[in-house]
Amino acid sequence: MFRLFLYLNILGAFLVTGLHIVEPGPEYPASKGAIWPRPQMQSIEIPYYKFDSDVLEIKVMDHDCPILSNAVQRSLAVLRDMLRIASPYVNRNAPQQVLDDDTYDGPLKSLSIYLTSPCEEYPHFGMIESYNLTIAADSTLRSSSIWGILRGLESWTHLFHLSDNRDQLHINKGEVHDFPRYPHRGLLVDTSRHYISMSNILLILDAMAMNKMNVFHWHIVDDQSFPYQSERFPDLSRLGAYHETLIYTKKDIQTVIDYARNRGIRVIPEFDVPGHTRSWGVAKPELLTHCYNEYAVDVGLGPMNPIKDSTYTFLRELFHEVQALFPDRYIHIGGDEVDLDCWESNPEFKRYIQEHNLTSVADFHALFMRNTIPLLSENSRPIVWQEVFDEGVPLPKDTIVQVWKGNEVYEMLNILRASHQLIYSSGWYLDHLKTGGDWTEFFNKDPRDMVSGFSKDINVDNIVGGEACMWTEVVNDMNIMSRVWPRASAVAERLWGHESQAAYQVYSRLEEHTCRMNARGIRAQPPSGPGFCLGA
Amino acid sequence: MFRLFLYLNILGAFLVTGLHIVEPGPEYPASKGAIWPRPQMQSIEIPYYKFDSDVLEIKVMDHDCPILSNAVQRSLAVLRDMLRIASPYVNRNAPQQVLDDDTYDGPLKSLSIYLTSPCEEYPHFGMIESYNLTIAADSTLRSSSIWGILRGLESWTHLFHLSDNRDQLHINKGEVHDFPRYPHRGLLVDTSRHYISMSNILLILDAMAMNKMNVFHWHIVDDQSFPYQSERFPDLSRLGAYHETLIYTKKDIQTVIDYARNRGIRVIPEFDVPGHTRSWGVAKPELLTHCYNEYAVDVGLGPMNPIKDSTYTFLRELFHEVQALFPDRYIHIGGDEVDLDCWESNPEFKRYIQEHNLTSVADFHALFMRNTIPLLSENSRPIVWQEVFDEGVPLPKDTIVQVWKGNEVYEMLNILRASHQLIYSSGWYLDHLKTGGDWTEFFNKDPRDMVSGFSKDINVDNIVGGEACMWTEVVNDMNIMSRVWPRASAVAERLWGHESQAAYQVYSRLEEHTCRMNARGIRAQPPSGPGFCLGA
Repeated sequence: MFRLFLYLNILGAFLVTGLHIVEPGPEYPASKGAIWPRPQMQSIEIPYYKFDSDVLEIKVMDHDCPILSNAVQRSLAVLRDMLRIASPYVNRNAPQQVLDDDTYDGPLKSLSIYLTSPCEEYPHFGMIESYNLTIAADSTLRSSSIWGILRGLESWTHLFHLSDNRDQLHINKGEVHDFPRYPHRGLLVDTSRHYISMSNILLILDAMAMNKMNVFHWHIVDDQSFPYQSERFPDLSRLGAYHETLIYTKKDIQTVIDYARNRGIRVIPEFDVPGHTRSWGVAKPELLTHCYNEYAVDVGLGPMNPIKDSTYTFLRELFHEVQALFPDRYIHIGGDEVDLDCWESNPEFKRYIQEHNLTSVADFHALFMRNTIPLLSENSRPIVWQEVFDEGVPLPKDTIVQVWKGNEVYEMLNILRASHQLIYSSGWYLDHLKTGGDWTEFFNKDPRDMVSGFSKDINVDNIVGGEACMWTEVVNDMNIMSRVWPRASAVAERLWGHESQAAYQVYSRLEEHTCRMNARGIRAQPPSGPGFCLGA
Repeated sequence: MFRLFLYLNILGAFLVTGLHIVEPGPEYPASKGAIWPRPQMQSIEIPYYKFDSDVLEIKVMDHDCPILSNAVQRSLAVLRDMLRIASPYVNRNAPQQVLDDDTYDGPLKSLSIYLTSPCEEYPHFGMIESYNLTIAADSTLRSSSIWGILRGLESWTHLFHLSDNRDQLHINKGEVHDFPRYPHRGLLVDTSRHYISMSNILLILDAMAMNKMNVFHWHIVDDQSFPYQSERFPDLSRLGAYHETLIYTKKDIQTVIDYARNRGIRVIPEFDVPGHTRSWGVAKPELLTHCYNEYAVDVGLGPMNPIKDSTYTFLRELFHEVQALFPDRYIHIGGDEVDLDCWESNPEFKRYIQEHNLTSVADFHALFMRNTIPLLSENSRPIVWQEVFDEGVPLPKDTIVQVWKGNEVYEMLNILRASHQLIYSSGWYLDHLKTGGDWTEFFNKDPRDMVSGFSKDINVDNIVGGEACMWTEVVNDMNIMSRVWPRASAVAERLWGHESQAAYQVYSRLEEHTCRMNARGIRAQPPSGPGFCLGA
């Protein structure tokens, strides 16, 4: 009686020699009750149940904690909202849904949640996210980790779909056995090129949870502005933010971390050094290097000054504060696009090269990193952009390298051969735009697949995941939600979802998932073509 | 004492050999009190006045009408809003703005509006939009047309800027003599591929008025859906809309027309025939042509059937209703991308070709248009897409041809040589996306400039304007505002603004104008690079 749904892509445009037949209606009809990302194993049976909030009881059978009870409340609210949002679109002329046919198995009576280990306080790299879900009149959700329970509850809400006349929520009998393919599934948000409001950051976390993404990579400061409000160095944001109100206070950051934690999302801050630090120099110009042009004229400030002890004294204090605030063991310290030419142009640096027998200006980058990494707290692990690896800067073995440019396969192979872990981003830059959309290109990038044929002496599992990157040069609160979603959903699908599916099998599910995000307040744009969502 | 402001572009990125110096802060600082689009003639003097809503009196000295009084109320609301929105950002630590220095000339006492002709009821092609504005303690705005008064009031609001500590609105003494370069400055919005809500359509009209655009080209129906609710043929939308609620009722359309009229904007509906009509066929399949593949199998419905009288009987009734509803003399009847191959594939059409000695299948297009144009009401003027012209369909002399593809210069020259008027859209497709933004490309297209060197036997004034086009395959309520604005503002600048300015002179003004749109509720995205708006 088991029946696997195949999500066949129904092509809206039908091309015969010369003819261009267009069908009316949506180009890709939405699926009904499909989980996003696609689970590793799922069976769907014909019998179905009805959601009735007066009947359904959610029972926490084993371990419990506020993260769990909050998630249960959110899930129930989502289901009630689905009915509320659909109510203006109920088709009252349609024949009443027949509920006494032999496929209707009554109202959903209960969902029993078995969390077999105590809750962890914070999500972390390598956390368990697998879960098993059995849908029946008395359903069960089981995981050995609170994070798996969160993922399972999210999937559970996806399984519900409106009846044909939209006045009921149905869920089919079935089972889901699910786990992620990659442990690190992130979204980078740049809050320096444009300030992003707290309310949008929290909405982004909501959307990430809907897509089972688990790392919010907060590229919090950069050349243009310094919105991080430091307690120890308040002038950094007072002078370096775009405006004294366009900042993230300690309380804001704690709110983000707690909101993320409740959704199984890690928050990894990036304090990009030694380049991309121009805004730090508004309050503290002494941190940066003076750059000179070919006529020996001082033309402005460049990267941090790696040959002054005071740079490291400052960084030690700042990192100490940051690491006390952000609980994740990982911290991103950047290292990309360092203006080596600036270092080279500075007379003091030229002398230093001679006096210390440096062979290349890149040695300053190595020097900087060698001095900076030990400033991090003992237990912490750094993440760096690929240049740090490319320039031969010595890195602790447990450093994760983020790949973002160049020949991505060659780059990944080099990093893997050096036995580093890496996260992939090259093909997932959300600021890159293409007419008509590009989610299939994002989806088609599978970093482990890219390298798997090339070498036997590498461990592809060291590709621990990837991140979609939202650089905000031309993105702010006005367009960030529709720019990120549902394009980042394609990355989420790739990093979690079932391996062996082609893009054409994803269209229908992405239509449904986009409408689902809209219904939950996420201003995701249309993914693929003409269509509509009711009640967005 | 006159002083012309030069809007110099301050380049944020400064490139010396090898060095990449980035300055902190916005890439393009916003101008202060610059009119968008740039007026034809403007002088700005150093003395300035303060806005005080208790002091300022707006006096209508000559003709008056509700359009005028509504616009006055809106303008005052905009000024009060500017102060309200700025209030959280007032810099209370800054030294109080010195208002008794010798450049401060007191509060603005009055604006006298001289409308020297009675109000017209509806905006129309060729309407007068010129105005003269003199800013002094007692200011004057003068035009011979209500539409010129509307443009002048809009410019007047642009001239106000916040004082340095943001607690006052200032306006400099000066004069503006202004008129548009092109009479037809339009925005096409496709409401078929995705339904666009009434509230967003009204916001789009607000934004158009802020950019002095004067034609809302409503591409209301297409293959995918038929949201126009016809009184005579209610099944067209009942069955052909995406959903019975996703429609535009007669009352909705009257609301749009009235809202537009109050802002000097014409509403031109497009009922695209004979192609792009698949959704019409949901209720009325008999209107369309059956298409056959090479095995003579019926594969679906194509363009309207031009050889059945009933097609024209239907169109006569529909157009009659539409033209009674939309007051503009112009109506767009489409004519693009007709699937000639479908007509050719149909056995009935093959017989018709033989029986009537047609030389080409394109003759069906000519036949269709020859039969359809006379169905329009007597006074009306058609607008058609370029294919109708390209295929040699005979057109009345007063038809406007819209250029959207191919070699745009060659196309425009051909149309001009045939003494037709044209509107240009090829380079202004807002659905075409480019990483980092593309407004400079839109801005750099000046249709009259493109053809002016090529031929003496043409009248470049027959290029009556152009339209930015928002096709909505992947655009809906979630992203339409940020997709259209401020990109369409670059088109508006080109069509109205001062001719001899290069893109680099526009950056600062576009920053200010984008923040201005944000402050007025238009979710325009960042135009060019890193930066911020306060109080958006």
